[in-house]
Amino acid sequence: MAVYTEVADDELEAFLEPYGLGRLLSYKGIAEGVENSNFMLHTDKGIYFLTLYEKRVAREDLPFFLGLMNHLAAKGIACPVPLRNRHGEMLGELAGRPAALISYLEGVSIRRPQPRHCTELGGALAAFHIGGRDFSLTRENALGVWGWRPLLESCGARADEVAKGLGAELEAELEILEREWPGALPQGVIHADLFPDNVFFIGEKLSGVFDFYFACNDALAYDLAICLNAWCFEADGSFNITKARALLQAYNAVRPLDAAELAALPLLARGSAMRFLLTRLYDWLNHPAGAFVKPKDPLEYLKRLRFHRGVTSPASYGLDA
Amino acid sequence: MAVYTEVADDELEAFLEPYGLGRLLSYKGIAEGVENSNFMLHTDKGIYFLTLYEKRVAREDLPFFLGLMNHLAAKGIACPVPLRNRHGEMLGELAGRPAALISYLEGVSIRRPQPRHCTELGGALAAFHIGGRDFSLTRENALGVWGWRPLLESCGARADEVAKGLGAELEAELEILEREWPGALPQGVIHADLFPDNVFFIGEKLSGVFDFYFACNDALAYDLAICLNAWCFEADGSFNITKARALLQAYNAVRPLDAAELAALPLLARGSAMRFLLTRLYDWLNHPAGAFVKPKDPLEYLKRLRFHRGVTSPASYGLDA
Repeated sequence: MAVYTEVADDELEAFLEPYGLGRLLSYKGIAEGVENSNFMLHTDKGIYFLTLYEKRVAREDLPFFLGLMNHLAAKGIACPVPLRNRHGEMLGELAGRPAALISYLEGVSIRRPQPRHCTELGGALAAFHIGGRDFSLTRENALGVWGWRPLLESCGARADEVAKGLGAELEAELEILEREWPGALPQGVIHADLFPDNVFFIGEKLSGVFDFYFACNDALAYDLAICLNAWCFEADGSFNITKARALLQAYNAVRPLDAAELAALPLLARGSAMRFLLTRLYDWLNHPAGAFVKPKDPLEYLKRLRFHRGVTSPASYGLDA
Repeated sequence: MAVYTEVADDELEAFLEPYGLGRLLSYKGIAEGVENSNFMLHTDKGIYFLTLYEKRVAREDLPFFLGLMNHLAAKGIACPVPLRNRHGEMLGELAGRPAALISYLEGVSIRRPQPRHCTELGGALAAFHIGGRDFSLTRENALGVWGWRPLLESCGARADEVAKGLGAELEAELEILEREWPGALPQGVIHADLFPDNVFFIGEKLSGVFDFYFACNDALAYDLAICLNAWCFEADGSFNITKARALLQAYNAVRPLDAAELAALPLLARGSAMRFLLTRLYDWLNHPAGAFVKPKDPLEYLKRLRFHRGVTSPASYGLDA
């Protein structure tokens, strides 16, 4: 959570000029996003969001991310939209970084989502999947099933520093996931990181989804499995079937899951738990001493993984078989 | 530059309720302020600023800081104003911290102030000093002339790690400052940290001053000497007499400096350079390895100190003697 790049008044005013947003009244660097530098701008015309893309975001991916927001917004999906300047460009340069001016999305992230929030989420995720169907660009999921083994290997024997036997457990799990991973499920653009901090609500209503910087092409039901992990477990690690039912039923009402997707759900949920466990494990083992951002506990995801390993039917997620 | 304390949606909504600002539409932690955690809030009623006071700000000083903003705003000084909730309180508690909701001040800090900005600043500083005259609370200047020796001693022999001979030069300078420091100049509430990043402009006009967390009682002309150092030197270390003249003339037009203040100005400017040199030196020698905030170069202020040491008359600052 940081602003990595400072932006001075004069360079910002020069950057803004071709957008025709009137006088710059104020701007603030905001403590959000670990990949980019973000600013909130206020001009005569309203509030805007400015993102400077730092090194961790590949420049060649930016047309996918910005194009996707633009595409989804045109389909009526509530999400931030990149503005075009008078030259028709969505991407400029500021303080030596690629930079985009983006509409400001109102809303508040929910720390403790309730079933009603999961209902809202399910409907919005299905609409996102349908809206993304005819998006013309594609992006591979670098953190999909074939990306997990290199991650596990880069942690190596050090996995057991976090929990005794963790390395062997993950190795055995990964063999199963690689062997049984379903290849023929309906594919499309997925968000791939739809945690509660990437969804806004105003009051009880979902006001938008954002942070598309992990979006990619993969199985649509895998995105739902990510949400099961991110939204339906309590702080004590227990699974809340009421929230899962709310999420899945609302999704299913907008985009019905087919039989193969339903059957694959427990395995997809194991895979999704594995994905977040591995990136957290990597960050845990490799964060610099004294770093400002405290890494998240990988073991939260080991609990989730074990839970899904015991699931044999979608009924355990609250769905009728 | 950081948010030290996370604030969740539910606790923020509970905190806001007695202010009657309507629905919370959004809030963002902002990367500003090294002492506190700051947030920008948007509600049905407008944009607001929320400050959570962290450990480095003494709780017993908060009535002075908040009361001063309130007092100055009532005098027509453009600055943020703490809001009172329906219980009449300006200070509450949020996420275990003292917290204040403050009006949102529009404006942009100027990276490279021009003489016209110094003219605006001079007038605003004089108005601040006049407006503060009848403020009933007082606060000692912990970083005034008698606070410098303990700071220098805490750096000790390590000063020479930054520049050879620095320790001896500062010791000799401090003896002069302590011996010759004028005790009888007009006193009052000073801002004590009025750098360009604590002043906002919209277009060419000053829109407000803020960050009162070093404000205290001291010689008014010392505040002006701080501004001479903070606003009238170029990035290459050279003194810009045009900016100094603009600052001093504009100040003098609103609150005329008396003969003693004019005569003391070079010494006050040396003292002000010493004060920022010492705190920067201390931070330079004591910042933790890998810390997120890079300390500022103390030697910039050694150059300023040496410049003022060569000044014998206010004419060197662009004023007629």
